[in-house]
This record gives sequence, C-alpha cells and structure tokens, in this order.
Amino acid sequence: MADSFRDTLETFENEFPDRDYDIEIICPEFTSVCPKTGQPDFGALTITYTPERKCVELKSLKTYLQHFRNEGIFYENATNRILDDLVAVLQPRRITLLAKFSARGGISTNVTAKYTTIR
Amino acid sequence: MADSFRDTLETFENEFPDRDYDIEIICPEFTSVCPKTGQPDFGALTITYTPERKCVELKSLKTYLQHFRNEGIFYENATNRILDDLVAVLQPRRITLLAKFSARGGISTNVTAKYTTIR
Amino acid sequence: MADSFRDTLETFENEFPDRDYDIEIICPEFTSVCPKTGQPDFGALTITYTPERKCVELKSLKTYLQHFRNEGIFYENATNRILDDLVAVLQPRRITLLAKFSARGGISTNVTAKYTTIR
Amino acid sequence: MADSFRDTLETFENEFPDRDYDIEIICPEFTSVCPKTGQPDFGALTITYTPERKCVELKSLKTYLQHFRNEGIFYENATNRILDDLVAVLQPRRITLLAKFSARGGISTNVTAKYTTIR
Amino acid sequence: MADSFRDTLETFENEFPDRDYDIEIICPEFTSVCPKTGQPDFGALTITYTPERKCVELKSLKTYLQHFRNEGIFYENATNRILDDLVAVLQPRRITLLAKFSARGGISTNVTAKYTTIR
Amino acid sequence: MADSFRDTLETFENEFPDRDYDIEIICPEFTSVCPKTGQPDFGALTITYTPERKCVELKSLKTYLQHFRNEGIFYENATNRILDDLVAVLQPRRITLLAKFSARGGISTNVTAKYTTIR
Amino acid sequence: MADSFRDTLETFENEFPDRDYDIEIICPEFTSVCPKTGQPDFGALTITYTPERKCVELKSLKTYLQHFRNEGIFYENATNRILDDLVAVLQPRRITLLAKFSARGGISTNVTAKYTTIR
Amino acid sequence: MADSFRDTLETFENEFPDRDYDIEIICPEFTSVCPKTGQPDFGALTITYTPERKCVELKSLKTYLQHFRNEGIFYENATNRILDDLVAVLQPRRITLLAKFSARGGISTNVTAKYTTIR
Amino acid sequence: MADSFRDTLETFENEFPDRDYDIEIICPEFTSVCPKTGQPDFGALTITYTPERKCVELKSLKTYLQHFRNEGIFYENATNRILDDLVAVLQPRRITLLAKFSARGGISTNVTAKYTTIR
Amino acid sequence: MADSFRDTLETFENEFPDRDYDIEIICPEFTSVCPKTGQPDFGALTITYTPERKCVELKSLKTYLQHFRNEGIFYENATNRILDDLVAVLQPRRITLLAKFSARGGISTNVTAKYTTIR
Repeated sequence: MADSFRDTLETFENEFPDRDYDIEIICPEFTSVCPKTGQPDFGALTITYTPERKCVELKSLKTYLQHFRNEGIFYENATNRILDDLVAVLQPRRITLLAKFSARGGISTNVTAKYTTIR
Repeated sequence: MADSFRDTLETFENEFPDRDYDIEIICPEFTSVCPKTGQPDFGALTITYTPERKCVELKSLKTYLQHFRNEGIFYENATNRILDDLVAVLQPRRITLLAKFSARGGISTNVTAKYTTIR
Repeated sequence: MADSFRDTLETFENEFPDRDYDIEIICPEFTSVCPKTGQPDFGALTITYTPERKCVELKSLKTYLQHFRNEGIFYENATNRILDDLVAVLQPRRITLLAKFSARGGISTNVTAKYTTIR
Repeated sequence: MADSFRDTLETFENEFPDRDYDIEIICPEFTSVCPKTGQPDFGALTITYTPERKCVELKSLKTYLQHFRNEGIFYENATNRILDDLVAVLQPRRITLLAKFSARGGISTNVTAKYTTIR
Repeated sequence: MADSFRDTLETFENEFPDRDYDIEIICPEFTSVCPKTGQPDFGALTITYTPERKCVELKSLKTYLQHFRNEGIFYENATNRILDDLVAVLQPRRITLLAKFSARGGISTNVTAKYTTIR
Repeated sequence: MADSFRDTLETFENEFPDRDYDIEIICPEFTSVCPKTGQPDFGALTITYTPERKCVELKSLKTYLQHFRNEGIFYENATNRILDDLVAVLQPRRITLLAKFSARGGISTNVTAKYTTIR
Repeated sequence: MADSFRDTLETFENEFPDRDYDIEIICPEFTSVCPKTGQPDFGALTITYTPERKCVELKSLKTYLQHFRNEGIFYENATNRILDDLVAVLQPRRITLLAKFSARGGISTNVTAKYTTIR
Repeated sequence: MADSFRDTLETFENEFPDRDYDIEIICPEFTSVCPKTGQPDFGALTITYTPERKCVELKSLKTYLQHFRNEGIFYENATNRILDDLVAVLQPRRITLLAKFSARGGISTNVTAKYTTIR
Repeated sequence: MADSFRDTLETFENEFPDRDYDIEIICPEFTSVCPKTGQPDFGALTITYTPERKCVELKSLKTYLQHFRNEGIFYENATNRILDDLVAVLQPRRITLLAKFSARGGISTNVTAKYTTIR
Repeated sequence: MADSFRDTLETFENEFPDRDYDIEIICPEFTSVCPKTGQPDFGALTITYTPERKCVELKSLKTYLQHFRNEGIFYENATNRILDDLVAVLQPRRITLLAKFSARGGISTNVTAKYTTIR
C-alpha cells in the first residue's frame, strides 16, 4: 500500500539551497480508519522540515493524505509511515511530524516522530 | 492493590523500534478518592513516553485508570504509582507523567514525575 | 433510589423573600456510570434558580451529587431526576438545570430542563 | 440513498414526556465529499431538539452520520437531508441543525435549518 | 453593622439627568469571611446602574467594600445587602448586582439581584 | 463598474424552497484600496441570508470579491454595493452583510447592512 | 472647551440614505486626565450609529478625540460630552457610545449612553 | 511575626524519596495589606518544589497564607518571606515561588524567587 | 523585479549601536498572488532583527511590502526574497523572518528563514 | 530632557540582597508622541530585573513614565532611554525592557533591550 501512496507526492526545486530555513505545514483535516473497530479516526498533522534540494508540492501532499481516508491503520503506524514517505521523497536536512488525534473514550493521543541527517 | 491494577495494562509491539519518537496520551477524566476526607478528587493526566519495544494499548489504560475511581490515595502517591506501573509494563526509553488536580479550598496542585533509561 | 438521594439535600431560609433574585451554582465535577456499558460518564452541571422560601445548602448539594458516582443512569434521566429533586426540596419560583456531558465516540451532549411556577 | 441511511437511526423512549426540555448534541467530526470536485469536506454539526416521545440513540446517530463519509453531497443539501431524517424518526416538538463547514478557498460556510410543530 | 457601612458610600451629582445612561462598575477583588467555617471567601462584583440624581464615588465604593473583608456573611446575604445599600444611597432608576464567588469544594456560585423604579 | 462585477456572481437552485433556513458565509480575506490615500484596506465579510429560489455559488462569490482588490472604494460604499449586488442576483428572503475593516490610525470600523422582503 | 472641540469633527455625505444600516467605530486609544488627581486615565470607545445624511470622517474623529489627551474630565462627563458632540454634528437616526475605562484601585468602569430620534 | 507563621506549616513524609519529581501548588487567593497605604493587595502564588524528605500539607499551607490577610507587608518582602519559611520547613531539593500581584495605578508586579541545594 | 523593490526600503541611523537589542515588526496584512493559479494569497510576516548601524523605516517597509500585492510568487520564495532584501539594506547583526500563510485546501503553511553575522 | 526625568525615579533598599530573584513590572498604559507626525503613540512596557541593592518604587516609576506623555520620541529611542535611566538609578544585576507599541498603518513594533553585569 505505502509504495503507491508515496508516488502521489510531488516536489519542486528549492531555490534557496544555501540557506538553512524551515517550512511548517499544518493539515487539520486528516482522517483514517481504526483497523480494530472500523470506526473513523480524526487528527491534525503538523509537518516541519528544512529542505535540501526539494520542497513538497502542497496539492500533491493533500492528495497523498486523502489516501488514508478509508485505510485501516493505527495512530503510531500512520505517523511513522507518513514520515518515512516524506523522508524518501524530500531527503530533507531535518523533518518532524506531530500528529494530534481526537479523543476516543475520553483519551486523546499525540505522536511526534523526527528524522535528521545531522547526528 | 497496585499489583492487581498493573495487570490490567496491556501492550502491543512497537513497529518502529529504530526511531526515537514520542507518544503523548491525555486523560482528562481521572478521579480518585481523598484517603483523609473520603471526598472525590478530580484530575487530568498527561503521559508522554518514548517506546522501546512496547506501546500501551489505550483501552486497557482507560480500564487501568478506572480502578482508582473508588480508591483512597493521595495526589503525590497516585502520580508516582501510575508512573511505576507504566515503567514496569512498558520499559520505555523515557516517560513523564504530569497530573493536574482540581482546586480544593482555593488551591490546586500539579505533580510531575519522570523516568529515563539514559542518565 | 431517588427518594433516599433527595433526603440528603438540605436547605436554609431565604432572607430576602421579597426580592426576585437568581442564584447560579456551577458543579464541574459530576460523574455517573453509563447503564449500558458500565463506563464512567463525566459532566458539568449549572443550576440557576430564583428562591421562594428556601435556598439549597451547598455542602449537602455536593453530597447529594456524589450519590450518582457509582449509579448507572442515562444523561437525559439524570438531568430530569436532579431537577425533580431540587424542585421538590426548594419549591423555587423558577429553576433551570443545564448538564454538559463529555464527548463519547466524538459526540458530546448537553441537556437543559426547566421548571417554573409562572406559566 | 436517504431512505437506507434513515433506517440506521435508532431511538429510545423519552421518560419525561410531560416536561418541555432540550437535548443538544455536538458532532465535530462530520465529513462528506464535494460532488463537484470529489474533494473531502469537513464540518461540525450541532443538533438541538425538544423530544416528544422519542430520543435519538447516540451510537446509531454516529453510525448514521458516517454514511456520508464517501457520499457526494452539497453543504446545503446535507444539512437539510439530515434534518428531514431526524424529523421523520424522532417527530420532535422542535429541532434545529447548525452545520459549520471548514474553509475552502478562504471562505467558510455555516448552514442552519429548523423544524417546529408549533407554528 | 450595615448602617455604619452604608455611611461610607459617597456620591456626586449626575450632570446628565435628562439622559437614561448606564454605568457599569467591576470590582474583582471582593473578599469576606464564611460565617460557618471562618474561612475567607473571594468574589467579583459587577454593579450596573442608571443614575437618577446621584453617581457613586469610586474611592468611597472601594472603602465600603473593604468593610466586608473581615465580616462573616453568606454569599446570598452579602449580595442583597450591598444592593440595598446602593439603592438607599443612589436612588437609581435601575440597578443590577452580579456577584461571582470562587469555587469551594469544586462548586462555584453566582448571585444576581436587581432593583428598578419602573415596574 | 458595479454592473460588470455583478455578472460574475453565479447561483444554483435552492432544493429546499419550502424551508426557511439560513446560510452564513465568512470571507476573512477581503481587500480593496482607499480612494483617498491609495493605501490597501483589509476586511472580513460575513454574509447571512435565507434563500428563496437561488443560492450563491461560492467560487463565483470568491471571484466577485477579488474584483475589489485594486478598486478604490470607501468602507461604507463597498458594504452597501456588495449587499445590492447579492440582493439583485439572489432575490433572497432576508440578507445581512457585516464588514469588519482592519484598524487604521488606531481606529477600526465595522459596517452592517440588511435587506428583507418581509417588512 | 466643548465648542471648539466639536468643530474639529468633519463629515461626508451618506450615499445610501434609503437604507437603515449601522456603522461601528472602535477607538482603543482614548486618554484623558482625572480632574481630581491629575493622573492620566485610559479607555476604549465604541461608537455605533445609523447615519441619516452624514457619516463621520475617521481622521477628524481621531483628531477630535486627541483633544481630550490633556483635558481634566470625569468618565461619566467625557462619555456624555462626546455623545452630545456626535449627535450635534451627525444628526444620526440612532447612536450608542460605550466607554470602557481602565482599572483604578482594582475597580474598572464602563459607561454606555444612547441617543435616538425614534422614541 | 514570621516565626509564629512558620509554625502553622505542617508536612508529611515523601514516600518516593528516590525519585526527583516536582509538585506545583497554585494559590490564586492570596491577600495582604500595603504597609504604606493600608489598602489591601491581591495576588496569586505558584509554588513549585522538588521534595527531599517532606511534602507540605495543603490545608496547613492555606492556613499559613491566611495569616498575611491583615498583615502590612511589601510585595518583594512577602515573596521572599514565604520562600524562606517553606525552605526552612521542607528543606526541598529545589523550590521556586512566583507571586503575581494585581495592578495598582495601572501597573502590575510579579516577583519570582528561587532556592536550590544544587549549586 | 527584486532590485527595484529593494530600493523602496529606507533606513535611519541606530542611535544605540553599542547595545545588542532586538526590534520585532509584525505585518499582518501581507498579500501576493499564486503564480500557478493566479489566486491571491494572504499572510502575516514577523520580522525580528538586531540592528548594527541601521534601522528600517516603517512607512517605507509598508510600501515595499505592498509591491508584492499583484506579483506572482511562491510562499517559500517570497519569504527568502524579503529576507535577502532586508539583509542587503540593513546589514543587521541577526535577522529572522517568519511568514504565516492562510489555509488553502485545508492546509496552511509557515516559512521561517534566518540570517546571522555570528556563525 | 533625560536628566530631569531620571531624577523622578525613587528607590528603596532591597532587603534580600543575598538572593538572586526577579521582579517583573508591567505598565500597559505608556504613551508618547511621534516626533515626525505629532501623533500620539501607545505602548505596553514590561520591565524585568534582578535587584542588587535597590528596588524601584512603583509610584515614582509611574510618574517617571508619565513624563513621556507629551514628549516627541521614536520607539527605539524611548525603549533604550528608559533602560539607561533604570540602569543608572538601580544598578541592577540584570534588567530587560520589552516595549510593545500599538499598530500604525497595519504594522506593530516590539523593541527589547537588555543590560547585565554578568558578561
């Protein structure tokens, strides 16, 4: 599944590769399906990255995220999968993904995952 | 008492053990009983941890926390006990528990306890 | 059940019966149990009334509301039951009860019931 | 389409038919699809009604609303359709439906429709 | 007690008696003592009135309210007493007093009393 | 100028003409030019109307409002002109336009205009 | 003093005299001097009016209000004076002036005055 | 004065001395008297400490703070005095006291003092 | 294009060159045009810099930013271009530009770029 | 001008010189005059300092700041001048002055200047 998703992500060239700058993208309308109960889940994603040679094109990001709409996937896995796909496509200097999921049973969950080329 | 509580916590396998990522769980509906006055106490718990091999299953966490509903326990002890139980079951890389208790007599109390394997 | 609950409500004399004035009491720590699932419910009650001869004593109101802590009762019934008990004990000129219940399955519910002697 | 949707709504008996009281239900996780562009829409519904003989069962309401998840329908029509279905099933004294839809192209839309038996 | 308190309220002449206008005074630092427990109570008063011939002088109002600092008095009585004193001294066209008292035992109380010459 | 603007507004048929319901459209990105100083002005429009036979199509509304981008026009006139155009095209039962303009010289301005067929 | 102030207010013609519409002007930077203590006072004015033939020009309003900067005047009188001046110059259908003054001695004051031609 | 105050502070044993955890106590209802003007002052205290062997008992803290109610003391001195008393009684690893005082003459003041055993 | 824009930025001499201090300028009314769709974009800029010998004159900054009003440019490029121009004209010790762009398709974007003479 | 201003600042002795603690003073009612346009400017100052031997007396600070009321001075210079005066009079261990100025032409400005004896 992930491979076909990943292909929908498009990029454009970073015109300021000499500068170390940050792009933060906020997607408050993320939705997927719980693989256990079949109930829809709702979340808000915040992607923050420092581009190397490529920037993500926003419309393709929107389309990419819509592929999760009817997909059954756990919170933790969705977060890490999206991060993996963005790292593969953008090869950024640094990237953080914060996913805030709506409350279920009175309990809400936020997952934060990071990737960096500078160790 | 604590031993039987702890057994209700279930876990599932962390599918991304190579990545150092954070899971934050917010439980705004915690309630216990004051051991001195017998009056109910109300609080909100925020659990933040970095998983090693295991993640806590949310429904079992909810059930675990409901065991405190009619238990008499002081704020400080409840906070530290829950942290101990989560550490025992998850063996996480790092974990923080912030417990915010409602005002009593015009005074409110927040307790924060941490555990880490990296000293 | 309701009868014994009602008896815990105490009153004191209204010292200004000639004036038509309002008393609003906010109880953000109401909790009961869902009769279907056995799960705890959480809510906030706002009681607004115009006293005739009696005012409700706050400590007894708190004790009265705590009787619902381990009682299985639906939202709509809890709201109407509490209103009935307050009307029986206070015989107020007017009274409104607004009960805001926490979200379950992404859906939250507020119930408002009123009583007045002036039709 | 609407007929089969409507059948998923379940009711339970109103135990306080002599009292004119209000039930407000807030559903912040409504989503459907734009019939023109095929893009997902997101909205929050607030249903406020005075029951006559029946109350809507919350779990069935949730299931009913999830049927719109992959349905193509305009904002105005979705709002009026849901109102029609609730009126048919509940036969309430009064009902109001407020639907707040997320911004598209920098423009957001709220639709409010009402029904009452008292003209 | 009330009589001597009332004397500390000073007034100045309303220079615009032909106009029906409103003066709202907000006093967020009201404190008195609970006559039952001896514990201090805290509240915020909002006074709204339409002057006839007299306006209340703010510094004297502040001094007047400070007399309650070490006085034992119930919420409902404090509110009605202050209203009575302001009515006696100002003889206003209309006056409303809203007193919001801080939470005690998880329950907070607001009392609203009104006076008007126009029935 | 106004005539050509007005033509860009498109409508679609109201499918629920028997129901008296409200549509609120919020446009926070309105901008025009001050005819006196040549400086850009910024505002937020809120349109609320009850349709008769026609609803305004949102994309065409957006295009219509963009025509003001480089037009010199006073606040009061812009508000009344947009209302006139919407009335002419929609022939609604009722319509209100609230325009909130950003502060200039420390002073901000809101203009509200209404139209109704029911006098 | 007031007469010379009033002359600084300029107007422009209302181009939509057939419509009954509202203009709200918010001036958060009003300052004057307390005539008793010589200390500066700070306030925020909200003017709401329905024009007949004239609208107030904003820059001249700003200049007019700046005349109070070093003038000694009580809250109640400043509010009523400004209303009188606006009524004299605009001859509006309706006008309301709300003046919110900053806290002094822990007490803040809001004054609201109105004028209407429709009794 | 300070000595007798300090004696009212009671402690209980810290049951988790091996863990370095934080307790935050918020007291929004602190009041004292200005030694210069005799006017009451109002403030909110936030105490954050890491216990060594002792925790402060909340009811005794409340009683301790009430001793300042009719005491004349400057902001800076009250803050430092309370910190000294808590350090003497608790001998904590670290403690911070933030005191936020209400505005006087349009100016508000916050005082923060700290103590630590780890230099 | 950029060259002519840059010339509209004016500066004045920093009178306190010995002190390392920060100037933060907030411009909530930035607007440009999307080069792909021709649709207007809206954003808020926050410029923070430490001056060396020159400070930017605010009125000229406003004029400079207005040049983007009808210019087609991507978010990332607009942000970096403005930073380049400010660096060229001010030669500051440090400067940061945060640009927050309004949501499009339910997704909003913030871009942050920095420059410093101290590596 | 500055010299005579500075003399109005009074101090009192710091009674806790052995402790390194912070005093934050918030003055939301600062006003001066733009030297270029003659228009009044409005701002809010936040002073944070660690006293050595002296604390600033609040009433004298208020009087000192009022001297700027009719003085023509640029934002950056006002901020640095006030810092210089406070440093001269208090000789503090550390001091920070944050000045937030109201929007002019849709652009607002904050200036932050610091002084420290510990390099």
